[in-house]
Amino acid sequence: MNKKIIVMGGDGFCGWPTSLGLSSEGYDVIIADNLSRRKIDVDLECDSLTPITPISKRIETWRKVSGKKITFINIDIAQQYSKLCSLLQELRPAAIVHFAEQRSAPYSMKSSFHKRYTVDNNINATHNILCSLVETGIATHLVHLGTMGVYGYGTAGMEIPEGYLTVKIEGKSGSKEIEILYPANPGSVYHMTKTQDALMFYYYNKNDQLKITDLHQGIVWGTNTPATLKHVDLINRFDYDGDYGTVLNRFLMQAAIGHPLTVHGTGGQTRAFIHIQDTVNCIKIAIENPPGQDDRVQIFNQATETHTIRTLAEKVAQITGAEIRYYNNPRKEDAENTLRVANDKFLSLGLNPITLDDGLLSEVIDISRKYSGRCDRSKIICTSTWTKDIACDFKGKEQPACTQAK
Amino acid sequence: MNKKIIVMGGDGFCGWPTSLGLSSEGYDVIIADNLSRRKIDVDLECDSLTPITPISKRIETWRKVSGKKITFINIDIAQQYSKLCSLLQELRPAAIVHFAEQRSAPYSMKSSFHKRYTVDNNINATHNILCSLVETGIATHLVHLGTMGVYGYGTAGMEIPEGYLTVKIEGKSGSKEIEILYPANPGSVYHMTKTQDALMFYYYNKNDQLKITDLHQGIVWGTNTPATLKHVDLINRFDYDGDYGTVLNRFLMQAAIGHPLTVHGTGGQTRAFIHIQDTVNCIKIAIENPPGQDDRVQIFNQATETHTIRTLAEKVAQITGAEIRYYNNPRKEDAENTLRVANDKFLSLGLNPITLDDGLLSEVIDISRKYSGRCDRSKIICTSTWTKDIACDFKGKEQPACTQAK
Repeated sequence: MNKKIIVMGGDGFCGWPTSLGLSSEGYDVIIADNLSRRKIDVDLECDSLTPITPISKRIETWRKVSGKKITFINIDIAQQYSKLCSLLQELRPAAIVHFAEQRSAPYSMKSSFHKRYTVDNNINATHNILCSLVETGIATHLVHLGTMGVYGYGTAGMEIPEGYLTVKIEGKSGSKEIEILYPANPGSVYHMTKTQDALMFYYYNKNDQLKITDLHQGIVWGTNTPATLKHVDLINRFDYDGDYGTVLNRFLMQAAIGHPLTVHGTGGQTRAFIHIQDTVNCIKIAIENPPGQDDRVQIFNQATETHTIRTLAEKVAQITGAEIRYYNNPRKEDAENTLRVANDKFLSLGLNPITLDDGLLSEVIDISRKYSGRCDRSKIICTSTWTKDIACDFKGKEQPACTQAK
Repeated sequence: MNKKIIVMGGDGFCGWPTSLGLSSEGYDVIIADNLSRRKIDVDLECDSLTPITPISKRIETWRKVSGKKITFINIDIAQQYSKLCSLLQELRPAAIVHFAEQRSAPYSMKSSFHKRYTVDNNINATHNILCSLVETGIATHLVHLGTMGVYGYGTAGMEIPEGYLTVKIEGKSGSKEIEILYPANPGSVYHMTKTQDALMFYYYNKNDQLKITDLHQGIVWGTNTPATLKHVDLINRFDYDGDYGTVLNRFLMQAAIGHPLTVHGTGGQTRAFIHIQDTVNCIKIAIENPPGQDDRVQIFNQATETHTIRTLAEKVAQITGAEIRYYNNPRKEDAENTLRVANDKFLSLGLNPITLDDGLLSEVIDISRKYSGRCDRSKIICTSTWTKDIACDFKGKEQPACTQAK
């Protein structure tokens, strides 16, 4: 049986623990990455809170600790198409896991440069993979990391289904039911690229019968997994800055170093969440359950619970005694929304969700305390704003008390 | 009043007559083009049937004939972002007409190179325009040439509305009506890029209130307009080859030179059509009717009639005595479909459609006869196929008589 898996973007926050998780399970993992996430840190003058080691050191350590081999290939899949084709032809992997996109919404909104990089990189990366699968003709299952953000939030106040929506259209000759891709409503340039990816998946599946699974993931929290905990040199990255840090990890880290919790707007935004270990579990489940020969694109919602940002802040404050502070919202979004998400597919395939109540919040606080000396406090506040108008009265300012959430 | 219009892609088949049409009407026209259409001809070893003159000669002739000035700027808007921003800042046009995309479906399917060029060029061209409008902050109306092909064909057997569709969703707490972008169902990589454009228009309108009109155009036929007829050096391009030629022009040209009419499949495909002069008329109407300050993206269907390919072939055969020949279909598409298209918006704004019955078919036949000496007959058959499987038994072969359309 073919156990080869290429993890594109396998050096990143989700990619690295996924690579180790798959390797642990006996897969032959090849990481393809251009190390762009580390290079972006150089430009942002920021760094992972945890001291991540170079990729060759990571792989060498994993070999020593587990006895298993992971191969690393430095490739920019958005740019090096011929190299990509040669790689596929040579390796003929059973599956490709595609994390190789710029994944921060605030980063994608910082300036024209960042908007243009995100669109150019993400679209060409995804399209090159699709093109190379058609050109080489290898029978590979593509597993793509998408986002819950393609749906927009609260569109119809109904539970968000897994990718497809049945709608009724009224015509002169009566009404008709059709099933469509859930109408896209992206909230940033980054999210927009994921909605554009969805159209490419739809088309290449229709025209070339490519086998594709698209995972609409919630916001990831947590740092380590059983595999990354095996040695300090395997530690996963932890982003706490205003661009790349994910909200719950940010709150936990802020609490650990005595910084007020930075709630944007009223904190009434409801979002979907998933623990990093469940990301790894879900990817493995997705790989092992490919769509059938003539199936359409398979879409799973990869999220285990929903909360408002305010609830999360209150929970963290309760555990740690941290102060909550409300800031003008740098994003253009609804101040408050409800959100219910179907995730029956992963549950039916055996996912046993890790939730906020499972005691792992303290793991993140411990990590944050341990490495607090590495924190640059000037990077904590989010400075990327969605429009110039917002920027004018924003600049990371706190809200006047009277406009704060109750 | 600001009469400056930048026509991006103003040297092409639709762009050139549009530029002259707007100049005739008193607009101050600036053509921004990288001459990619002429360069693609070099690679395809093909040429316009009509002897088009270089862009500087075109502009010089127009000046002599009309007394009006058109400026030409050689710029690749998908690549030269800084130059684009400087241009907008300097000119501050009232409107931008955006034709600057690779516009052939067969070309977009020829190979990985052509797929990748089409995606990279079209997405970055459109995104650069949107980004530069936000960055410069100028109040400009963007008029984009899209395609009827974003809708797919015959999805629900109902009249295709102008861009938006009202659908009913059933939830646990009752049903709800929402208006969504018409579900995208592209038929080629080229069409896919236009559906991706639509998401960018949606997002940049939502986030930055850009004023955008998206024109979903049918298949264009005809060659000249009153303006291009003023001098032989102003002649519009005429594509007859299997990649860039549009179906009705191809049939008329084939009839003129005694080549059998090349019907793909059964010819039961229904498509929407528009004459090149109406393209020019519609663009002018669109420019003069921008959306309001906080309006969503304005979408018009730019098509005046629908026909099956078979009907067109029969009409041309009837006029000219040409033979109809059926070929294996190089495209992956429904063999037969119905299509009804709403075009009330342009009609209500004063468009007086030119139809097939207006005698202009003979103009195309005359042009074709006049320049038949320039035709390379080896370029007539379409050789680009949608998949490798189709390519295997295709190679431009005629169908066995028994499988031909009745």
